[in-house]
Amino acid sequence: MKKLLTLFLLILFLQTTQAQDYIDYVNPMVGTQNMGHTYPGATVPFGMVQLSPDTDTTRYELNGSYNSEVYRYCAGYQYDDPTIVGFSHTHFSGTGHSDLGDFLVMPTVGELQLDAGSEEDPSTGYRSAFSHENEIAEPAYYSVLLEDHNIQAELTASNRVGMHRYTFPQTDEGHVILDLEHGIYTYDEKNVWTFVRVENDSTITGYRQTNGWARTRTVYFAMKFSKPFKEYGHEKDDNGVYRGFWGKFDESKNFPEMIGKDIQAYFNFDMEEDEELIIKFALSSVSTKGALKNMQTEVPHWDFDRVKEESQGLWNRELSKVDAETLTKEDRETFYTALYHTFLGPITYQDVDGRYRGLDQNIHTADGFTNYTIFSLWDTYRALHPWFNIVQRERNKDMVYSMLAHYDQSAHHMLPVWSHYANENWCMIGYHSVSAISDAYIKGSITDDINRSLTASVQTARVPYYDGLEYYMDMGYVPEDKNSSSVSKTLEYAYDDWAIAQLAKKAGNQDVYDTFMERSTYYENVYDASTGFMRPKLSDGSFKKEFDEMDTHGQGFIEGNAWNYSLYVPHNTEHMIELMGGKDRFSEHLDSLFVMDIDDKYINRTEDITRDGIIGNYVHGNEPGHHIPYLYNWTNHPWKTQERVRMIMETMYSNGPDGLPGNDDAGQMSAWYTFSALGFYPVAPGAEWYAIGSPNVKSARLNLENGHFVIIKTENQSKENVYVQRLTIDGKDINRNYLNHSELMNADTITFYMGDTPNKEWGTVYPK
Amino acid sequence: MKKLLTLFLLILFLQTTQAQDYIDYVNPMVGTQNMGHTYPGATVPFGMVQLSPDTDTTRYELNGSYNSEVYRYCAGYQYDDPTIVGFSHTHFSGTGHSDLGDFLVMPTVGELQLDAGSEEDPSTGYRSAFSHENEIAEPAYYSVLLEDHNIQAELTASNRVGMHRYTFPQTDEGHVILDLEHGIYTYDEKNVWTFVRVENDSTITGYRQTNGWARTRTVYFAMKFSKPFKEYGHEKDDNGVYRGFWGKFDESKNFPEMIGKDIQAYFNFDMEEDEELIIKFALSSVSTKGALKNMQTEVPHWDFDRVKEESQGLWNRELSKVDAETLTKEDRETFYTALYHTFLGPITYQDVDGRYRGLDQNIHTADGFTNYTIFSLWDTYRALHPWFNIVQRERNKDMVYSMLAHYDQSAHHMLPVWSHYANENWCMIGYHSVSAISDAYIKGSITDDINRSLTASVQTARVPYYDGLEYYMDMGYVPEDKNSSSVSKTLEYAYDDWAIAQLAKKAGNQDVYDTFMERSTYYENVYDASTGFMRPKLSDGSFKKEFDEMDTHGQGFIEGNAWNYSLYVPHNTEHMIELMGGKDRFSEHLDSLFVMDIDDKYINRTEDITRDGIIGNYVHGNEPGHHIPYLYNWTNHPWKTQERVRMIMETMYSNGPDGLPGNDDAGQMSAWYTFSALGFYPVAPGAEWYAIGSPNVKSARLNLENGHFVIIKTENQSKENVYVQRLTIDGKDINRNYLNHSELMNADTITFYMGDTPNKEWGTVYPK
Repeated sequence: MKKLLTLFLLILFLQTTQAQDYIDYVNPMVGTQNMGHTYPGATVPFGMVQLSPDTDTTRYELNGSYNSEVYRYCAGYQYDDPTIVGFSHTHFSGTGHSDLGDFLVMPTVGELQLDAGSEEDPSTGYRSAFSHENEIAEPAYYSVLLEDHNIQAELTASNRVGMHRYTFPQTDEGHVILDLEHGIYTYDEKNVWTFVRVENDSTITGYRQTNGWARTRTVYFAMKFSKPFKEYGHEKDDNGVYRGFWGKFDESKNFPEMIGKDIQAYFNFDMEEDEELIIKFALSSVSTKGALKNMQTEVPHWDFDRVKEESQGLWNRELSKVDAETLTKEDRETFYTALYHTFLGPITYQDVDGRYRGLDQNIHTADGFTNYTIFSLWDTYRALHPWFNIVQRERNKDMVYSMLAHYDQSAHHMLPVWSHYANENWCMIGYHSVSAISDAYIKGSITDDINRSLTASVQTARVPYYDGLEYYMDMGYVPEDKNSSSVSKTLEYAYDDWAIAQLAKKAGNQDVYDTFMERSTYYENVYDASTGFMRPKLSDGSFKKEFDEMDTHGQGFIEGNAWNYSLYVPHNTEHMIELMGGKDRFSEHLDSLFVMDIDDKYINRTEDITRDGIIGNYVHGNEPGHHIPYLYNWTNHPWKTQERVRMIMETMYSNGPDGLPGNDDAGQMSAWYTFSALGFYPVAPGAEWYAIGSPNVKSARLNLENGHFVIIKTENQSKENVYVQRLTIDGKDINRNYLNHSELMNADTITFYMGDTPNKEWGTVYPK
Repeated sequence: MKKLLTLFLLILFLQTTQAQDYIDYVNPMVGTQNMGHTYPGATVPFGMVQLSPDTDTTRYELNGSYNSEVYRYCAGYQYDDPTIVGFSHTHFSGTGHSDLGDFLVMPTVGELQLDAGSEEDPSTGYRSAFSHENEIAEPAYYSVLLEDHNIQAELTASNRVGMHRYTFPQTDEGHVILDLEHGIYTYDEKNVWTFVRVENDSTITGYRQTNGWARTRTVYFAMKFSKPFKEYGHEKDDNGVYRGFWGKFDESKNFPEMIGKDIQAYFNFDMEEDEELIIKFALSSVSTKGALKNMQTEVPHWDFDRVKEESQGLWNRELSKVDAETLTKEDRETFYTALYHTFLGPITYQDVDGRYRGLDQNIHTADGFTNYTIFSLWDTYRALHPWFNIVQRERNKDMVYSMLAHYDQSAHHMLPVWSHYANENWCMIGYHSVSAISDAYIKGSITDDINRSLTASVQTARVPYYDGLEYYMDMGYVPEDKNSSSVSKTLEYAYDDWAIAQLAKKAGNQDVYDTFMERSTYYENVYDASTGFMRPKLSDGSFKKEFDEMDTHGQGFIEGNAWNYSLYVPHNTEHMIELMGGKDRFSEHLDSLFVMDIDDKYINRTEDITRDGIIGNYVHGNEPGHHIPYLYNWTNHPWKTQERVRMIMETMYSNGPDGLPGNDDAGQMSAWYTFSALGFYPVAPGAEWYAIGSPNVKSARLNLENGHFVIIKTENQSKENVYVQRLTIDGKDINRNYLNHSELMNADTITFYMGDTPNKEWGTVYPK
């Protein structure tokens, strides 16, 4: 018995130790400085709540015109800011446009202030100065000292419940502000309606309804305090709107229905020195009843530390899917933070009972799957969803079902383009759901419902009024005089169509396969041999005359110039290279891309591109280029891919607040890193192969969901030894420069033999 | 077999004949002229849809200030207007403030116009001239020729589905406008959000969310056309609001999501000469899915005539509950139209599956009852709910359960004051739910859950922040310097408290009985013996110095002056008369009331009081006076009640468009008539007795829900013979001037013997 107990304690000890391991290597501050657009707050893997500090009030419009500063606040937090406005419950991670920031909560002491006040003088409002020295950010835990109020603020979260623990000084003027006007990318008309009900002396419910990036978005909440407030009240700017009280009430104080366009509520408390006030704050897309049920189910107690521990345990479990050894501590933190970032979204979008608000604004029940939202597909189809096909196969299957549910609910009969919270925001181009879906079937994450998926994909690719698609279908390209960014659209449609064809092949549908393989060649129609670039064509069949291959505006591209975007034929790189003059010519072209100068004027005018993310004219800070470093594999110089990839990992990513070269883009930027760090990358999702690069880990054990594990190891690894000399799978030499998915998933050990000079004989066979 | 068939056909014939009878006596136009505020359109008894023409765009505010004209349009339709704007699906009947008018549909021909245009020149918009000659209004059926478009419009409705049949001329420019900006009592900020989805080539769904009288109100719809539209589109004023399209779409045409604050959509059709276009338009408070289910369940077919026939059958069934013979055809039409008006509301407020949006904005299921909304209780507790306790006992029980559900969902823990569509609009004063509930128990319409009802009533009567209630509880009256209309509030609280006491007595709760009987005497605290009127008292205990007993403003009353309102102690009229100097003094006081002059200045400044509804200084056109004509029963001159009541029925009500003396007030004005026409009136709901007046029917058979029927008959009835000579119940003489509820309900025959001179010996025993 004693032995058993010892064993039990040992296991417990080992588990606890292990449970602490991975989260220690994550720095949620990575990407919070400059344009990473990540948030440092508390969330669980793929969690519905992202409870995080906001450091500005982030208005999209000021005095009726666009506020260029707002772009820095896509995730609410900027590392260099001196004040915290409060803690809101929903945040995108790494997006390039924004929304959310729902339900700002802020504890204060002293005179009641319902405006946030200014950064220059936080005493003008409820916001507070803070210092990074008094700040801790861990997965599922965030803590900061709010200096102006002498309140220690701590945050943690379960999937659907944010938990706040505020340690107050002694005061009879303690307040908790609940600001429903606050939001990310707000403007005067952003709030459609806000609604707060005081259910009893410690329970609040309500909702915030907004338009904006999401046209019609409603999030419901339930909020409970660990002790009763002594009084409460609210202000709103739209006092004129409601006309029903007949002078019966002073609705501003202790009136339990606070309703209008921009409710700013407060709750007052007497607090003892060091007394803790705990708040549970649950979300729901369905109703306040749903939020209360989420709270009661997930966090029925008031034990903050228990929620923190359980949620950090969830993180450890997910992060343990890759047990990586790296050359340096910095690399390890960079890797695990990237891994962390790839597991932030898409987020869970259903209540504990499976119900969620669908695209048609009706309540649906996710039957047999977990419903997810935040599909930033122009970004995430590239590497994030492929990454999930290795380490989050179950979730990726459910994400496919979530996309199909979106399709079923779509008035357009389309799969999601960029969807969040029961809305299609139509951001960016293409219909890349089809890529994510196709890749999931090709890689076996999902096997059922293939015909349903194929029908949805085909139908999506045939919506005539979508973004130049009718022209594309009729003419084989999008004409720039009919629809802008026409080259980018043509190229991406062509790739997407190829992905549909792969799905059709898997489904055994030859007709669809043939049709979409034909469409997948349409990239040829925008190649201009005279310049060697993809180039916008007009509806009369001629190329657009004025053409600046360095510019990202008005040249037929979007968020990328001709130098970068012309290289986008991931499904037929070999043919693209032929068009562009053959392997050697192409290799030189790539060399030029990485070393040429680019004028500031081209950078400054594009939101998503900053100097941080650029090497020569290669833009790593934005997605259209992510596959480019791997394209040397199709030339006679695959070792240049190895070199570039290591250089990008070394120079563009780090473990500090400025550790991302651009928006993390819902995990895509980080997924590029997690793939590359392991030595390969999915250049063409929907294909079975990964292009080999150069791993920067010493080793990594992939703990797959089916119980099998794969060890990726290196020999002779170092910062200098970036060149692959030899590659073996279970001891068998592989001389091609790609790896098939089934090989990866079934291998026991994949070994990279590294060296400081290229092995020019190795890896000359590329994927076709 | 042949005999059986003959019998069957005979029964069918009789039923059909009978089925046509009662609706023929109803003129839905009654009250549409001047200030009756009724609507002429199609609805079923207590139906959720009220599909009716609107003749103006009824803006509550014009250029930021109150539009006094709007008051004429509380129900959307004014008889004297020359044009129809369109047909909207929700209407109050007879209210004194307004809302609704959701989902205006208008068929047009020719150039597309999305504005309503002006009354002076309807060709400036989609509205059309019309003539009463080409107009038919029946229960559940309305028809009109839209002259500008040469379209014959017909409307009918089931409970939750409005049905339109439009017969077009030949045109390739046929349109159906769906205007979600339109509403009753609209203003710039009235619409919170509107949402329209084109589900397929003939099905539309969506919702309209408003604030206003209802603070947060959302109504969902589903709309189906009998043939596909050829194209569609929309306009909205708030084009700046939504920022998400990135130039991808022209959302104004054939874009299936039309979203914004004020969508005006159109659907285009090619129509042959005399081709019918039928529209089914279902409502739901839950969701568009709920609306579709309502449609599919109630009207799965396209047979307009069948819906009309079935719904008119429902009306006949309800109207047959009183089979009245009258002296004249006009009286018969007046009576059945009044009966019709008493059966319009409260309206059904749940989907076919029992689900509805509750006061907390969550979705609830009515379990074991039908949920109703539109409780205009300051009006309807007086006679409408008592009327239901005779002829709609099942429904009234469900209305009590609906009020209890409201209580359960109320953040204030209050029963409804004036509630509609999941909102408390707080209109007028008192907490008269307690009267309606108490009366329902006293009269046995409901027996279960009495303690639940008592708790809800007591709790409601103790909400300290409600409308002076804390003062009332503390000081025994509402002080005018703390809360205006203080006398009206004090008097009505005192009566309501008496009603609670009656419920407590029935429940056997002596404590509550004693407490509330004590509170029910508080009317004494505002009686001013020096003037003989109830008079506003200040918080220092003194009466307010300036006092104009003719004025309705600033004198401590609301919608009534001291002359009328001082007579409001329905639960202890005997004591009130003592206070006021005894029976003879009081009888003279009443005489004065009915003959004195009142200056126009007092009338013009009160919305709810017009010359039409006034006799001397007695205001029948508004509720505070409705019991007054019956008060002679407590004097030595009960025959004056008989005289006055007959005079009021004869002069204030008729069968024409101007046939109501003021707002029908959700049926209260008509319930006064139906009671009075039968010869009695519930002066103090919650008491078992009815005060005897003077019936104007020749006879009436009350077909009770339990199968028993009561014949009320008269002998020697005529227009002149207004005085009751003798009253018998089943042959037994009754000399008191009241009738108990149980006597009424169990009687076989009640006979009034009438004469042209008072029988001053009869009826001197009054209720105590």
